[in-house]
Amino acid sequence: MRERRALHLALITSFSAAPHTIGQWRLPRSYRGFDFRRLDYWEHLARTLERGLFDMMFFADAYTLHEAYGASPDAAIRGAVQYPRMDPFTLIPALSRVTRRLGFGVTASTTFLPPYWVARHFASLDHVTEGRIAWNVVTSYSDAEARQFGLDAIPDHDARYDRADEYVELCRKLWASWEPDAMVFDREAGIFADPVKVHRVDHDGKWFRCAGPLHVPPSPQGHPVIIQAGSSPRGMQFAARHAEVVFAVPGATARMSEQRDRLDEALAAEGRGPGEIKVLWGVTPILGTTDAEAEARRQEIIDHASAEGALVQLSGHLNADLSRWPADRPLEEMEVSGVRGYIGSRFAPGETLAGLAKRLGTGVGQHITGSAATVADRLEEMDEAGRGDGFMFVTTTLPGSVEDLVDLLVPELQRRGRFRTAYPTTLLRERFRA
Amino acid sequence: MRERRALHLALITSFSAAPHTIGQWRLPRSYRGFDFRRLDYWEHLARTLERGLFDMMFFADAYTLHEAYGASPDAAIRGAVQYPRMDPFTLIPALSRVTRRLGFGVTASTTFLPPYWVARHFASLDHVTEGRIAWNVVTSYSDAEARQFGLDAIPDHDARYDRADEYVELCRKLWASWEPDAMVFDREAGIFADPVKVHRVDHDGKWFRCAGPLHVPPSPQGHPVIIQAGSSPRGMQFAARHAEVVFAVPGATARMSEQRDRLDEALAAEGRGPGEIKVLWGVTPILGTTDAEAEARRQEIIDHASAEGALVQLSGHLNADLSRWPADRPLEEMEVSGVRGYIGSRFAPGETLAGLAKRLGTGVGQHITGSAATVADRLEEMDEAGRGDGFMFVTTTLPGSVEDLVDLLVPELQRRGRFRTAYPTTLLRERFRA
Repeated sequence: MRERRALHLALITSFSAAPHTIGQWRLPRSYRGFDFRRLDYWEHLARTLERGLFDMMFFADAYTLHEAYGASPDAAIRGAVQYPRMDPFTLIPALSRVTRRLGFGVTASTTFLPPYWVARHFASLDHVTEGRIAWNVVTSYSDAEARQFGLDAIPDHDARYDRADEYVELCRKLWASWEPDAMVFDREAGIFADPVKVHRVDHDGKWFRCAGPLHVPPSPQGHPVIIQAGSSPRGMQFAARHAEVVFAVPGATARMSEQRDRLDEALAAEGRGPGEIKVLWGVTPILGTTDAEAEARRQEIIDHASAEGALVQLSGHLNADLSRWPADRPLEEMEVSGVRGYIGSRFAPGETLAGLAKRLGTGVGQHITGSAATVADRLEEMDEAGRGDGFMFVTTTLPGSVEDLVDLLVPELQRRGRFRTAYPTTLLRERFRA
Repeated sequence: MRERRALHLALITSFSAAPHTIGQWRLPRSYRGFDFRRLDYWEHLARTLERGLFDMMFFADAYTLHEAYGASPDAAIRGAVQYPRMDPFTLIPALSRVTRRLGFGVTASTTFLPPYWVARHFASLDHVTEGRIAWNVVTSYSDAEARQFGLDAIPDHDARYDRADEYVELCRKLWASWEPDAMVFDREAGIFADPVKVHRVDHDGKWFRCAGPLHVPPSPQGHPVIIQAGSSPRGMQFAARHAEVVFAVPGATARMSEQRDRLDEALAAEGRGPGEIKVLWGVTPILGTTDAEAEARRQEIIDHASAEGALVQLSGHLNADLSRWPADRPLEEMEVSGVRGYIGSRFAPGETLAGLAKRLGTGVGQHITGSAATVADRLEEMDEAGRGDGFMFVTTTLPGSVEDLVDLLVPELQRRGRFRTAYPTTLLRERFRA
């Protein structure tokens, strides 16, 4: 049995009406007068998470409209299937002003945005948030995204990661281009910064060239915390090289130890130990004051989740049209390129599309339904099985499910000594390192 | 004599220690315990401008470190000559939360960022600010900027504008890709948006391809107010095609009518009338409670403005090394590519580098020093001469000069019936159209 350490807790969402759970925007407890397009709604979520002493509010993002299902985007638009997708960067500065300790993770793709711009934006955000920003590095995965940026198709998977390696290395050079004490601000002498301590970068690589320096003075954290969520072998290698925090979607609990082994092997190959990275497992808790209330809520969520919506999302993620696949045929018989690995890691044996659609409707990763005690028991089991450092919670109702996490689950974890009772006064990175 | 209409007032700054006036960060009245890297400073400026009923807070931006002077960036770094340059996008969401009516203009270059990303970011900002965002469209001008983005040199001037034409057209298509009533949000029927009213863009142009639609529901203004500041013939053609607001740097007052004529001719060539665009003239007021106090402040500013700093900035703007030019030789004798036009429009006949450096040290455009009555007299003359719609004020001390505008100049203009006494409850675009 591992030492029972305090867990790290984060929330995953996106700047959308329906981040991860199909149909959640339709539920009676969702929104309640809030408008997902306006800041006061996101400020309420951020304040709630800070009340619950969460480590981080994390924004998934993509430039995709799921359009593989039936070769049309209509079902995604109609049902708000991970749609719309507004720019999460436009929320963070305001959210940082209604909180003091909560961290913010934001997704940005290395495939479409210039590294100089991304390095500068995150360095500026690190100043503005006073050291609470993290970058979720993604390489993007869909042709639909590529077509927004003038490409016919998304580049090959491994080439994307090769490019991302150089991209992150270049950003690190830019963040290091001012020595920590380069800014002097001496009014009398008229010396703002010491030019000897501000260095060109002159990066000339396979994919990128950049002169540098970055035009931003050193920020509180030096650079954003680096987060990564890749689960392919190449994605894990990338995470092992660059990431400080990994977001992992667990398979069955029995498989979590094997998932963790793979990450530890990738870390070892890069000369890093298992303690040098924090692993947050993604789970979808459905909480109630009793197990029965939670189960009733789960049923309500399923009743509002359309099977079509779930298939739209799955088709998008698999880049395959599942509208042509019989609803009752076992998924392991499916012959769609790229689907096998996804099925192998995530789907139950014998599961059919019809069954899967209902299950996916309730969110990403494992679903845990019950009272705070029931959910905390399961989280402790998963923590033991996956040798992780905490959890990334997926929302069901909004803002209701976030309030449940803070008002029901956090006190239970605190009683068990598994969660902090006050924020440490450190920067986000130091909190994750502790 | 023209009808004496109410003026529009805006402030130009940038996310920097020293936006436009060389050495302003050194002045005794500057910063006063504020830190330019932190939000509370910018919030103070935004609140002050809203107290003064200003139309807009405008953020210039560039990815440049001036490095032409002496072929080295050292002087720019040492003296904070338009340096550093942090990302102004990271301020706007927070500033929108401490104000209710103030508009925000942000600069973004069409040369380096993908149009899909820019269109999405501004559409999201229009939601977040509840209809108060404007985009200052620039094409970038320096090789130093190009080298941050993997290019050896900045593309040719006219090619940049050809590209920018298509860029803005593509953004407009993306902003129009959702019909205004496409979002339904019908929980009972499970219809989030009507797919019949969300359209692909399928743009396939000379410079860009983009599938669309934008993944953002229609925003309060539909799209950002378009601002442009180009003064070359091609830049003016671009403004005449796309801009709703023009920021113009006036030459001598006697020349302003001719400057305005050129813009009106460009507008006519695009089939637009002079009333279809708002012109804000850039000026640098130095205010005091009396003319004598203002003059003393001007002297203080000049005493803190290094001639070297001014030459660094001018060299950067001209892409020429002025460290080799004799300080006492008249500027019209200079034979540096691209300099003649700049000199012709902005410099006094017989002006030398030494004289110019001191003058530039106090900011951009015409400088007006005096009491509120003196400055208001001059503004009224300039308004008459240039047939404009208002002014874009350049800062000297920060935040002192902004407080002076609000506490000294605004009441004087209100007394004269030349400025509003309350905000209209309209969106930013409607305010500029009124």
